[in-house]
Amino acid sequence: MEIDNDPAYQQMINGELYMESPKLLKLRNDVRTKIMAYNQIADNDKRNAGMKSLLRSVGDRFFVEPTFEFSYGVNITIGNHFYANHGVEICDEGRVTIGNDCKFGPKVGLYTPVHPLDPTVRRTEAERTAPITIGNDCWIGGSAMILPGVTLGNNVVVGAGSVVTHSFPDNVVVVGNPARVLKENKPNA
Amino acid sequence: MEIDNDPAYQQMINGELYMESPKLLKLRNDVRTKIMAYNQIADNDKRNAGMKSLLRSVGDRFFVEPTFEFSYGVNITIGNHFYANHGVEICDEGRVTIGNDCKFGPKVGLYTPVHPLDPTVRRTEAERTAPITIGNDCWIGGSAMILPGVTLGNNVVVGAGSVVTHSFPDNVVVVGNPARVLKENKPNA
Amino acid sequence: MEIDNDPAYQQMINGELYMESPKLLKLRNDVRTKIMAYNQIADNDKRNAGMKSLLRSVGDRFFVEPTFEFSYGVNITIGNHFYANHGVEICDEGRVTIGNDCKFGPKVGLYTPVHPLDPTVRRTEAERTAPITIGNDCWIGGSAMILPGVTLGNNVVVGAGSVVTHSFPDNVVVVGNPARVLKENKPNA
Repeated sequence: MEIDNDPAYQQMINGELYMESPKLLKLRNDVRTKIMAYNQIADNDKRNAGMKSLLRSVGDRFFVEPTFEFSYGVNITIGNHFYANHGVEICDEGRVTIGNDCKFGPKVGLYTPVHPLDPTVRRTEAERTAPITIGNDCWIGGSAMILPGVTLGNNVVVGAGSVVTHSFPDNVVVVGNPARVLKENKPNA
Repeated sequence: MEIDNDPAYQQMINGELYMESPKLLKLRNDVRTKIMAYNQIADNDKRNAGMKSLLRSVGDRFFVEPTFEFSYGVNITIGNHFYANHGVEICDEGRVTIGNDCKFGPKVGLYTPVHPLDPTVRRTEAERTAPITIGNDCWIGGSAMILPGVTLGNNVVVGAGSVVTHSFPDNVVVVGNPARVLKENKPNA
Repeated sequence: MEIDNDPAYQQMINGELYMESPKLLKLRNDVRTKIMAYNQIADNDKRNAGMKSLLRSVGDRFFVEPTFEFSYGVNITIGNHFYANHGVEICDEGRVTIGNDCKFGPKVGLYTPVHPLDPTVRRTEAERTAPITIGNDCWIGGSAMILPGVTLGNNVVVGAGSVVTHSFPDNVVVVGNPARVLKENKPNA
């Protein structure tokens, strides 16, 4: 994509302190306008095709209920067979990679931006990002959120309302704020 | 209602493992289209009348701020004098029964679907539901959520941001993730 | 403003038990209608100008992503350089005062209404409010919420998903439900 050659974009996805460049700003404005229009489309095929067209890469069987929101879209990669219920938001300033067969409940949030803790820096709008990676067969419960830098393995179930602050391996159910392992969940052999 | 005779609908509301049937899929698409339109109506009487027309049964004095979302509508029964602030979502794959004089804060979520823990089953889209029952005089605070199978008695106050994972009796204030009793709250005699 | 002379409005912002008056009801209906329209505007300058026109007072550099929601607007005072990501809701039945250089993540909620604990009173719609005050240089993480009566000092960072039930002084990072101090965060000298 054309944005890939923008130096600020490179800083952004590499986790360096960056300022939004004119090219990033233009992309974000274009994406906001298109998302607003797509979120008004009741026809599932047309709405989903519109949303897909803004993302880096998406497999087959992609379905999002309105409203579905993201920041740039170009940092979102999703595998096959994805479902997101109403009100999901993906802040994809950093890279977001989602595997196959994932389901997101309503109001789920994936947040990659990290604002500086020093307020004099934060005031300048400079920020960093940390990527989010979600494996195959993950189910993220309603109103749960995944924070910057988190990697979830395959078959991770996140309980509704959980705040996932660090990474978890395959085959666990996690719940709470902050999220902790509730139990193992090995698939049947 | 016509949907009541659909075998998949019967499985759905009875808590059995079910797959969405063509009739359920058509209902959901119709409901999504109508909700999207009703959420654009600023006139309170018209918006509320539209939403009411999609629900199983609703008493008098029904008021929802936009946006108000649900899945099918036909599984939602609400008593008299109901108020929901902006952004409430009721996933009514299972039955949702709400008493009289209830107030929901903004972004409240009621979630009845239960996806299978076995990923090979979850991938097929088969799911179960568990009903939610809320008594009279309940106040559900902003961004709180009620999970599948929960029954709340009368005069239960749920603190903002709480995650209600199990049932509570009459006259309590519950808070936290997971929600626990903060104090009793017997009405004045 | 004209509403300032309404006795119910005075009770409302003074934390007394109040009932919504015809003037307050009319204001809220007008504001709802305008917010719904403004949330449909993709052009940033026009959307932000519209929202600003409904608030008590706002400084320079005000930017809100759609949707941005509030109840009356006239109780919201915001300093310079404010940013709110998608889906922020401010229930400004009580006064909400926000300093300079504040950033709100997606789905943040500021809730000032306090419904009576006695259900016989709550049923009448009578309610109270408690004000929320947020200092300069605060960053409220995604899906976090601030409850009635809370005052945050300057440079308070609220972790994503936190439920802020009481006040905090300057220069802290707070997280959790209920939110507690995670660490001090004095700016570099």
